[in-house]
Amino acid sequence: MPTDKQNRPKARLPRGFRDRTAAEIAAERQTLDTIRKVYEAYGFEPLETPAFEYTDALGKFLPDVDRPNEGVFSLQDDDKQWLSLRYDLTAPLARYVAENFQALPKPFRRYQMGSVWRNEKPGPGRYREFTQFDADTVGSNSPSADAELLMMVCDALEAVGLKRGEYSVNLNHRKIVDGALEVANVDMSKRGTVLRAIDKLDRLGIDGVRQLLGRGRKDESGDFTQGAGLAGEQIEIVLAQVQPAMTGGSPRAGLTASVSMAVTDGPSGTKGHQELREIFQLVAAAGYNDGRINVDFSVIRGLEYYTGAVFEAQLKIPVQNDAGEEIIFGSVAGGGRYDDLVARFTGQQVPATGISIGVSRLLSALKSRSRPALAPLVVVLSLDDPQASFKMSAELRAAGIRAETYVGTRKFGDQLKYADKRGAAIAVIEGGDERAAGTVTLKDLALGAELSKSIESRADWVQDRPAQKTVARADLVASVKAMLERRR
Amino acid sequence: MPTDKQNRPKARLPRGFRDRTAAEIAAERQTLDTIRKVYEAYGFEPLETPAFEYTDALGKFLPDVDRPNEGVFSLQDDDKQWLSLRYDLTAPLARYVAENFQALPKPFRRYQMGSVWRNEKPGPGRYREFTQFDADTVGSNSPSADAELLMMVCDALEAVGLKRGEYSVNLNHRKIVDGALEVANVDMSKRGTVLRAIDKLDRLGIDGVRQLLGRGRKDESGDFTQGAGLAGEQIEIVLAQVQPAMTGGSPRAGLTASVSMAVTDGPSGTKGHQELREIFQLVAAAGYNDGRINVDFSVIRGLEYYTGAVFEAQLKIPVQNDAGEEIIFGSVAGGGRYDDLVARFTGQQVPATGISIGVSRLLSALKSRSRPALAPLVVVLSLDDPQASFKMSAELRAAGIRAETYVGTRKFGDQLKYADKRGAAIAVIEGGDERAAGTVTLKDLALGAELSKSIESRADWVQDRPAQKTVARADLVASVKAMLERRR
Repeated sequence: MPTDKQNRPKARLPRGFRDRTAAEIAAERQTLDTIRKVYEAYGFEPLETPAFEYTDALGKFLPDVDRPNEGVFSLQDDDKQWLSLRYDLTAPLARYVAENFQALPKPFRRYQMGSVWRNEKPGPGRYREFTQFDADTVGSNSPSADAELLMMVCDALEAVGLKRGEYSVNLNHRKIVDGALEVANVDMSKRGTVLRAIDKLDRLGIDGVRQLLGRGRKDESGDFTQGAGLAGEQIEIVLAQVQPAMTGGSPRAGLTASVSMAVTDGPSGTKGHQELREIFQLVAAAGYNDGRINVDFSVIRGLEYYTGAVFEAQLKIPVQNDAGEEIIFGSVAGGGRYDDLVARFTGQQVPATGISIGVSRLLSALKSRSRPALAPLVVVLSLDDPQASFKMSAELRAAGIRAETYVGTRKFGDQLKYADKRGAAIAVIEGGDERAAGTVTLKDLALGAELSKSIESRADWVQDRPAQKTVARADLVASVKAMLERRR
Repeated sequence: MPTDKQNRPKARLPRGFRDRTAAEIAAERQTLDTIRKVYEAYGFEPLETPAFEYTDALGKFLPDVDRPNEGVFSLQDDDKQWLSLRYDLTAPLARYVAENFQALPKPFRRYQMGSVWRNEKPGPGRYREFTQFDADTVGSNSPSADAELLMMVCDALEAVGLKRGEYSVNLNHRKIVDGALEVANVDMSKRGTVLRAIDKLDRLGIDGVRQLLGRGRKDESGDFTQGAGLAGEQIEIVLAQVQPAMTGGSPRAGLTASVSMAVTDGPSGTKGHQELREIFQLVAAAGYNDGRINVDFSVIRGLEYYTGAVFEAQLKIPVQNDAGEEIIFGSVAGGGRYDDLVARFTGQQVPATGISIGVSRLLSALKSRSRPALAPLVVVLSLDDPQASFKMSAELRAAGIRAETYVGTRKFGDQLKYADKRGAAIAVIEGGDERAAGTVTLKDLALGAELSKSIESRADWVQDRPAQKTVARADLVASVKAMLERRR
């Protein structure tokens, strides 16, 4: 052990990572369990791929221009092959499907939950490790596959506690945007820049997007973002495409109204509208057109690998940051159709569609809502007979009560303070006197909390009558149960 | 998309990693849930640290001589600090405690489950990513803390399905071994080599260990392992210490017999025996000396950071490898007291003790046991009206039945084959005729499985009477329920 202070490492979390404790872990576990049950009810089966993939398997589809390859945590294996930690759960799925194609039922429908890692600059609320929950259908180009995911994610969001009206799952189609670019005669080399500009509609508004489609835009800090360089007429054709989402009393009004407002219908646009209509008809027939699922022509999704329908789930409730300021929260789930991802490996196009719930994001948006409570805790103090204390906590646990024996070495007052700090409901005390009398003393800590802070000795404590009760040792379990019952 | 075959990456799992599918994932989830509930009942609270730690925080305690620093997956962050993926869950706990010491209740008792990563040479059944479940008590040097962990791990192993007598939690104390070294006048520089030699007793037997304590040992492949270089008399004193575990009818007979057989009692040995006795008395008073918890002087635990009690859980049931050969399985859990780990950061010694269940190892040992079954699945075929199919699966799910709509684009026979491949219990069919008649057809796939393989058209299939039933559409849910009920 280094006694030399200079040689001691500083205990510190790595930059952009965090520790999580009981309440947060319980909330995430409950959320994951809930989503899992919905997805399993729909017949999706779990898959777990490893944390690492070969970097070439993550490939060019992962890094779009906003997120270069440096955005991935990578290292070289001892056989010189490069490994990267997964950046999302979609690229590993494509690798898995390509590797196991023959053995899989088609369509192959799997869910996967887990951590993903992004080697990005951390910021407030922006971590380099977070949890996603994905569901994907591989091997079907039917609109049914997309419609199912949309309905399923609505069910999942409601199962985790969102009420109808508090969220909107928004649907668009990449080919509709492509159709607008065709009609406007935009060079396809500019497609990525145009998509990224439209993607910022929520944040920058229509004028900001207009600047990004043209020469470019200077932000508040003075930084200049180069624009797509479209001519004025081209810009207006493209904006007319996304504007239905921005105008009228009901900006996300559903397919019928929106589609009739769309002015652009190049050859791609026609196909896009057709597919969008088929998906929407399916969800409408199941009643999900009641505000749950809406068409929104401004939905883009940043990643370039989408080839057809794209969708995202937005919260419609106010979300505050840690400083209590209301923020534009962005989406809590996103996805779409990506028909080319498996072909990277096999050369054969395999139609695929998926949706990913940003569980860490969702939990941070819902953090003010009620959290799952742990069962109340009983702490059995350990005074002069730890064997007797262990026996009591074992009896309580056998009766289904969360109970621990104090396993430190400090004195009575410190043990009571420990029980307080643990948030325990009840402390169980059996000193020599109680043992001789065949009794134990139960202290209701919620009632006695204020008093106990100033109590240093057993003698003082005995005066603290209101919150305590001495019962027969044989009645320990029944008496604890009764005291817990009264607390509710 | 690369059409050029040469530019396409090969879809392959990284070396030493694996994909896991439904049955394995369900088994692990059930095991983790079960252990978690036991640990929470004991009042342990969850903690989740990130996958990465600064490499200096993992420090010198992790790599013992068998596992050099290269055993850790490491990379340099863009601020030039080295990051490593956690190698176990203990080193991150030490960092967390050092960083948050003032705020924590003492003793601090936490559990953590999760993946750990080891950059080691993969082999059969030997992966570079696996799951551990740890419980630790920090801030108490009381034997109660060790005793509690021992009893808790017994409860956890039984909760996950091991019967009493199928496992043994074995207990030793590092200071007893140190005592033997003192009595034998062994230079403390040789301590690590001696410990590692004793640690191999299960695998090499007493003669193998004798060679490793002396000049060294040549294994079957001809490789020579350098020994500790002890003199013959020193070797026998050390072996007398571990031999009680090897002799007599009951090699792990419990404290009373074993301690009286121990011949070595240097000053460290005396302290070690005293602490061991106190721990064992506590577990004996709670009845865990019925074969669940035993003293075994050959228990070492490879890592050098243990300072007091050491323990491990061994299976006493036969375990086969993938080739069906019976193997020496080693331990499914291990731990001990490590009083110096937090002091690496703070300079102040903080007593700590912990136990880690190797969940992946445990599951691989128990893989032949029954696995949790998923609920039976119903597949609703999608013939000419996907909206109607979605409606049926939604009705079934609302009744608590796992039900999916076929979302591919293939024909009737393929859809039936898909349902078979998915292991579905029932296929629901509503074609035009059924719809006109207000009926649906239910096919019991377990009954009809053999026949359906050769069925290509609806007409053929209609002949396959025994396993099918046509019911009123309004009775769909009740009829499916009844059919599932009959299957049990």
